[in-house]
Amino acid sequence: MKQSETLTVGVVQHGCGERMDQNLERVLAGIDEAAARGAQLVLLQELHNHRYFCQTEDPKLFDHAEPVPGPTTQALGDIARHRSVCIVGSVFERRTAGIYHNTAVALDRDGTLSGIYRKMHIPDDPGYHEKFYFTPGDQGFRPIDTSAGRLGVLVCWDQWYPEAARLMALAGAELLLFPSAIGWDSGDDAAERQRQIESWTTIQRSHAIANGIPAVCCNRVGREDGTLFWGSSFACGPQGEILWSGATDADTVGVVAIDRRRPEQVRRIWPFLRDRRIDSYADICARFKD
Amino acid sequence: MKQSETLTVGVVQHGCGERMDQNLERVLAGIDEAAARGAQLVLLQELHNHRYFCQTEDPKLFDHAEPVPGPTTQALGDIARHRSVCIVGSVFERRTAGIYHNTAVALDRDGTLSGIYRKMHIPDDPGYHEKFYFTPGDQGFRPIDTSAGRLGVLVCWDQWYPEAARLMALAGAELLLFPSAIGWDSGDDAAERQRQIESWTTIQRSHAIANGIPAVCCNRVGREDGTLFWGSSFACGPQGEILWSGATDADTVGVVAIDRRRPEQVRRIWPFLRDRRIDSYADICARFKD
Repeated sequence: MKQSETLTVGVVQHGCGERMDQNLERVLAGIDEAAARGAQLVLLQELHNHRYFCQTEDPKLFDHAEPVPGPTTQALGDIARHRSVCIVGSVFERRTAGIYHNTAVALDRDGTLSGIYRKMHIPDDPGYHEKFYFTPGDQGFRPIDTSAGRLGVLVCWDQWYPEAARLMALAGAELLLFPSAIGWDSGDDAAERQRQIESWTTIQRSHAIANGIPAVCCNRVGREDGTLFWGSSFACGPQGEILWSGATDADTVGVVAIDRRRPEQVRRIWPFLRDRRIDSYADICARFKD
Repeated sequence: MKQSETLTVGVVQHGCGERMDQNLERVLAGIDEAAARGAQLVLLQELHNHRYFCQTEDPKLFDHAEPVPGPTTQALGDIARHRSVCIVGSVFERRTAGIYHNTAVALDRDGTLSGIYRKMHIPDDPGYHEKFYFTPGDQGFRPIDTSAGRLGVLVCWDQWYPEAARLMALAGAELLLFPSAIGWDSGDDAAERQRQIESWTTIQRSHAIANGIPAVCCNRVGREDGTLFWGSSFACGPQGEILWSGATDADTVGVVAIDRRRPEQVRRIWPFLRDRRIDSYADICARFKD
């Protein structure tokens, strides 16, 4: 299929309540709105059907995991086909008893499941007990081919790792996508909050810059127990230039046009991939050199 | 030696004229000023003794290269000892006939040459014909131990490569230092200029963030032929937070206090190094996966 010169991307940022069915309704309404406004690809936030349940460790919560394909990919596939839009969503996946993943799913505009990405980097910090819930992904950093392009889908904590973005780009990703769930701890003061949100934006913009491709991030909003999720979903171009950004504290559906020609223009003036010292990077695979 | 809780870093940003002796005088005056204002470590800009000669390819210009150690490290070592300050400078190095490097040099406060770093990533773009002049470094990404700490010195084009910063951090670098020479082409419009300078700041801040260590950058100012060097030297902390920044268009000596305790605090709340998927990074050493 010949691609247009512009890719229109929708971003659905929202708060989540206790009821998964109501969260999913909000997601579907957001996809409807983004599609109506011309989106060809819609990015959802991490674990969009759930409250961010990783604030505590509770084995009962594995009951909320589901297979992939399963009910959520079915619902997203149905609306993808109905609205003829690609969707990147996020599922708490039950792969088998005792193996659960934080899994991004890509539905093409005909409703088929184009591929999945299982979160590779798993955090574990106060308020983010993800190592209890999520088995680390074992499929590596493989982009997903869709009619909207080859998508480098990564999930939240992955966004802090330049290696992840680089590996997606080296595998031909045309666009980086980051479903996210990150917020401030209630103990953080104003200066720390500012440093954190700027760090988070800065490093994701830098992945776009390092690799000469656009990046889009979708993060939830709202207070859930001790965490205030900071929203601020955004899209940037291949020089990290901000094309759109959402509020810190409100449900938002963003729709942004991304120039598909710009990455090749930028990689010609800044040919970083040409000059990589691949003869000298082996120690990237070391834990630490002591 | 027990280190103080604060490291005071000086940055000497300046324009360069045709006469190397006058450029060096400006450098020495800047070091004097920074030391007088309390700097324990002074960072100079890339090729600070020279006009940025890589705008054209001229074999005669290799006459300006010098050995390391040599006259420039002698001059920097003398003032380092005299002012009891560490200095990171930059030399157009003649290693042998036909092998010339773009080399950063670290002088300790007793005047000894602590170590060198030979630029690993060499650009070649209109106005930056560095592949003609500079043989790629063959010593890898090794930090330099000094009384001011273990320094992750990288040079200009290296700053676009997350791999370079990561390898320095994995080798124990406590601080990233980037001598630089980058500017706008006279054909760039205002929007492109803004994108470029923001990209450049953003990606260097991101290296600090990804690795949880501070970064300091020193870039020249002034118009030289078709290039307007954009200055904007800066220092940031381990969350990428800007601690000091210089003008885009004026000689500047900056002196900034960096908290040595902050990196460990930040790495405890954002333990990115803990969660690296070193089992899955091997393809970082590939050129492209096609």
